[in-house]
Amino acid sequence: MTKAYAAQSSTSPLAPHDIERREPGPEDIKIEILYCGVCHSDLHTARNEWHNTLYPSVPGHEIVGKVVAVGDQVKNFKVGDYAGVGCMVDSCGHCSSCHDGDEQYCENGFTGTYNGPMFGGENTYGGYSQSIVVKESFVLKVRHDAKDLASVAPLLCAGITTYSPLRHWKVGPGKKVGIVGLGGLGHMGVKLAHAMGAHVVLFTTSPGKVEDGKRLGADEVCISTDPEQMAKHANSFDFILNTVAASHDLDAFMSLLQRDGTMTLVGVPAEPHPSPAVFNLIGKRRQLAGSLIGGIQETQEMLDFCAEHGIGSDIEMIPMDYINTAYERMLKSDVKYRFVIDMATLN
Amino acid sequence: MTKAYAAQSSTSPLAPHDIERREPGPEDIKIEILYCGVCHSDLHTARNEWHNTLYPSVPGHEIVGKVVAVGDQVKNFKVGDYAGVGCMVDSCGHCSSCHDGDEQYCENGFTGTYNGPMFGGENTYGGYSQSIVVKESFVLKVRHDAKDLASVAPLLCAGITTYSPLRHWKVGPGKKVGIVGLGGLGHMGVKLAHAMGAHVVLFTTSPGKVEDGKRLGADEVCISTDPEQMAKHANSFDFILNTVAASHDLDAFMSLLQRDGTMTLVGVPAEPHPSPAVFNLIGKRRQLAGSLIGGIQETQEMLDFCAEHGIGSDIEMIPMDYINTAYERMLKSDVKYRFVIDMATLN
Repeated sequence: MTKAYAAQSSTSPLAPHDIERREPGPEDIKIEILYCGVCHSDLHTARNEWHNTLYPSVPGHEIVGKVVAVGDQVKNFKVGDYAGVGCMVDSCGHCSSCHDGDEQYCENGFTGTYNGPMFGGENTYGGYSQSIVVKESFVLKVRHDAKDLASVAPLLCAGITTYSPLRHWKVGPGKKVGIVGLGGLGHMGVKLAHAMGAHVVLFTTSPGKVEDGKRLGADEVCISTDPEQMAKHANSFDFILNTVAASHDLDAFMSLLQRDGTMTLVGVPAEPHPSPAVFNLIGKRRQLAGSLIGGIQETQEMLDFCAEHGIGSDIEMIPMDYINTAYERMLKSDVKYRFVIDMATLN
Repeated sequence: MTKAYAAQSSTSPLAPHDIERREPGPEDIKIEILYCGVCHSDLHTARNEWHNTLYPSVPGHEIVGKVVAVGDQVKNFKVGDYAGVGCMVDSCGHCSSCHDGDEQYCENGFTGTYNGPMFGGENTYGGYSQSIVVKESFVLKVRHDAKDLASVAPLLCAGITTYSPLRHWKVGPGKKVGIVGLGGLGHMGVKLAHAMGAHVVLFTTSPGKVEDGKRLGADEVCISTDPEQMAKHANSFDFILNTVAASHDLDAFMSLLQRDGTMTLVGVPAEPHPSPAVFNLIGKRRQLAGSLIGGIQETQEMLDFCAEHGIGSDIEMIPMDYINTAYERMLKSDVKYRFVIDMATLN
């Protein structure tokens, strides 16, 4: 049996629960989980806010650990290696998206690390557990120093969710890039866009976050509720990464894009955003887009980029039994900027 | 004096009105107008529906005529040439958009062919007139046969408004392209996308337009109110050009885009569209965009493409004094697919 923390229903708090992990097959890797980041999706799933949760539900898809067993066909990992697992543990492998390395857009639906096979098959259990068994092609190499492993965990979701669109829309030197919101995703967006060499402007509603934004790598911090500060940036951005999931006025940011600029959303609001003004799109051939995590190869590229640039998440380490309190604090954005569970506390 | 048709107020019908055209300067071309297409923007402006109309207002920006005088620095036109004028007669010429040949996105605002200099300067008068004087750099060569000139007029707005996004989003062989709406813009979109070699699907709410859609070049016609027909096209389009200005459910079409697909709007609805679902963007990295007419060089390219492929607009020729009736019919979409004024009837 494998110790884990699970929700037994949408209204019950997470609590200890034993699960069964499969024996590693020839292509499988068994990972002893050292750290697991706490993503807002964990809470949505535990509480069935997306109306698709299978119980018991073991959340967690920001997983870093140590390889403790490998199948005999595993090529690139050996026992003792550090390894990561993100939001996916499988995909169909033969559709056009999988073929292109965009497993996150698998035409047949990827298998989530938790709450996975929703249409038949067994439920998948995530990283709030002692160990996990994953096929090699969905396991990532972690090349950070051992002392930084906890800060690597959030890269597996918050990191790749921001890295992928920044790369896809070609953020780099000479580009002016906006990051909307300074939370788990936004703080990674600032760090990554800065490391890619762009001129980074952080948009936040909180004057109290100005200093932190600059510390994280923003060249400028703009208080988005101040029309004068916003007006200074009109028609100037190549790309804006909008990490705010709460419903808000998109036009305030769309109008800051220059001709052919794109704003990409990575959060799904519970209530729809007000409808974006069409003339804001037409007048400058602007684009409103969305992006979902990133492919496996791209996730490896992101981890390597972060190792090279010394980038990790800003974290607050918590013991496993603090998770329900952490959820309540997360709802109030009371975390800088990601909770990470020290999985040794589960034993 | 130059004879024209003008609206004197938002509520008065268009009626004869004399205007003054400037004498051609060294870089100017004077054009005797032979035909002028009737665009929905003409009606919006005549009736001040965009709240910016200067009166008297002489609409018309789908102009084809014959050169009757050229300034001494005009290089590429001579008296007797056929020439076209579209939606713009000037732009700042030195901003990044103008530099890139995207005068329609001029950072300082292009000068419209009618109702032009809204912030100071004299009002511009459009093509519902005997002649117009325009600087050479905003005059287009018309290489169609003389007998086809009337059908060329709508290319100057409806043609370029559809051609530009089809080119920008790289429509061509091997691409599956949707055109939403079969009106003045939509019927040009079908013809152009077909000529570019794409697989073209027309979306219309009118079963009565199926045959016409196929005649114009659609490989398939889908009745967009039929969920079964729509479902067959899920996740399959590279690009959708949405020409419908009326407020409607964008998600019905967004969900037909494949991964990385784009839907581009070219009409501004009076009432906002329902807010597009964010998960539809995120789930496949789809994009919602807008596009405005096209640049001058691109308009020339479009005219040459149309001449080469024998493409013109399907038109109904009308005399000048029919314009108020034509507006009423246009409001009911009762035209296949563009009214063109025979400007000889103004004399």
